[in-house]
Amino acid sequence: MTGFIPQSPDFEDRVHVSFAGQTFMETIGARITRLEPGIVDLTLEKRADLCQQHGYIHAGVTTALLDSAAGYAAFSLFKPGEEVLTTEFKVNLLRPAKGAFLVAEGRVVKPGKTLTVCRSDVYAHQGGEDVLVATALLSMIAVKTPAV
Amino acid sequence: MTGFIPQSPDFEDRVHVSFAGQTFMETIGARITRLEPGIVDLTLEKRADLCQQHGYIHAGVTTALLDSAAGYAAFSLFKPGEEVLTTEFKVNLLRPAKGAFLVAEGRVVKPGKTLTVCRSDVYAHQGGEDVLVATALLSMIAVKTPAV
Amino acid sequence: MTGFIPQSPDFEDRVHVSFAGQTFMETIGARITRLEPGIVDLTLEKRADLCQQHGYIHAGVTTALLDSAAGYAAFSLFKPGEEVLTTEFKVNLLRPAKGAFLVAEGRVVKPGKTLTVCRSDVYAHQGGEDVLVATALLSMIAVKTPAV
Amino acid sequence: MTGFIPQSPDFEDRVHVSFAGQTFMETIGARITRLEPGIVDLTLEKRADLCQQHGYIHAGVTTALLDSAAGYAAFSLFKPGEEVLTTEFKVNLLRPAKGAFLVAEGRVVKPGKTLTVCRSDVYAHQGGEDVLVATALLSMIAVKTPAV
Repeated sequence: MTGFIPQSPDFEDRVHVSFAGQTFMETIGARITRLEPGIVDLTLEKRADLCQQHGYIHAGVTTALLDSAAGYAAFSLFKPGEEVLTTEFKVNLLRPAKGAFLVAEGRVVKPGKTLTVCRSDVYAHQGGEDVLVATALLSMIAVKTPAV
Repeated sequence: MTGFIPQSPDFEDRVHVSFAGQTFMETIGARITRLEPGIVDLTLEKRADLCQQHGYIHAGVTTALLDSAAGYAAFSLFKPGEEVLTTEFKVNLLRPAKGAFLVAEGRVVKPGKTLTVCRSDVYAHQGGEDVLVATALLSMIAVKTPAV
Repeated sequence: MTGFIPQSPDFEDRVHVSFAGQTFMETIGARITRLEPGIVDLTLEKRADLCQQHGYIHAGVTTALLDSAAGYAAFSLFKPGEEVLTTEFKVNLLRPAKGAFLVAEGRVVKPGKTLTVCRSDVYAHQGGEDVLVATALLSMIAVKTPAV
Repeated sequence: MTGFIPQSPDFEDRVHVSFAGQTFMETIGARITRLEPGIVDLTLEKRADLCQQHGYIHAGVTTALLDSAAGYAAFSLFKPGEEVLTTEFKVNLLRPAKGAFLVAEGRVVKPGKTLTVCRSDVYAHQGGEDVLVATALLSMIAVKTPAV
């Protein structure tokens, strides 16, 4: 329970439908593992084709994951007819993304009519414990129609 | 010509070898299209499996590209025995990444013994012109050995 | 000439009136030294009461200056009846702000109906040359009435 | 209690001495109101000379406060002989800084030998309650001697 009141009664369906439309999330194997108003967790298993030069998960994968987690956390609070776009984000990469899988925890910090500010933390599962590998602040904008 | 003096005589080989070790760059189809001291361009063609829900290139792909471009721009100035890691970055997504391909221009703003600050701009090739779709500031750190 | 077309014929007056209302700019001694559509430079002289512990200009002063320069660069392109607020910014502090005075160069990167993205570079005048001491990316929002 | 172990037995004195050397903190009336290993709160009363054009505390003051709070939170964990410099930070300004006083809560997220990552949240005291007006992520670097 976050205390946030969703503005779309079918917010869960809306998130799942939009997420399913992101081919890149399927390409990297990300899936939704938690979905509540203002809260989305995404989980991704390590794969040999997602790595950087030292064999850890690539920072580009980590940031794609944390961006989508925060975007859908924001989108879960949007009104019917509104779409979500990331306008900007900042990420601090704290440790190498070692481990068997990553979980990105997207959370709404402040909802707004136009801009919604989120944070997103990424944990790597390493030998039985979850280690914080990245933390981010992000701004999401509600747009009336998809930007075409 | 950037005026930067590379500290490794074989900086081009070093960049190509490290880049080739990033399986994720191969997964998304990124390739090096310019390499000079303090300068790296990466180019990526649009593919159906790299998209967000409106059919444009996913912001996660755009940021993976701009991060690697800046990282290798920094790495091109590093000394032998030094590796590069991104410590943090911030990206403003200015327009949807429409178009047939993206070019990320990574540039060193200020080299340093420990930290190197870069910027990275991403252009989308749309109907004969290059449109700025993202701009970023990034910090890269030189580490003596790969973070294992 | 920036190619930006101001939407308010009296944009210069609007900037000067709003700037004069910022008591904090007077407190730190900042003044407008360049004003064109999408462009604002602010200049500030070093004073003993604006320093950090090593006797250089405090990063808080540097960032206040670069934020206001960018904010008024954006505001110069706004429509009548619109006010400006900073929604977020990111600054890289590249070198200590040594020198007799600072100039912050605020520039619009991408104007927009709601959000305007700017960059802002701060130069310190040191022994006859201008040294880049900070670079920033910023988002400005146009609001219909002052946020009261 | 944060679980962080200070590396300097006199960390409290070191913070107070360094803070007292920042003339700008005195200029804006900031003072330390909490100091523990990895934790620093700074408090500042609203004054008429610290405002923006709508009469609220200027974003430049808010960011100076949150930057110093985080910087000293990091510095509290540094070893003897080390100084602190901010290398970069990102702030989201969530609401106008209305109210009688501000408290910036600087917290270490991840200490490091070279870089320490912090967050800093600023609350405005408005009519009996504390409202989050800004949130930031910051990188601090330990340097052996003051950058002169």
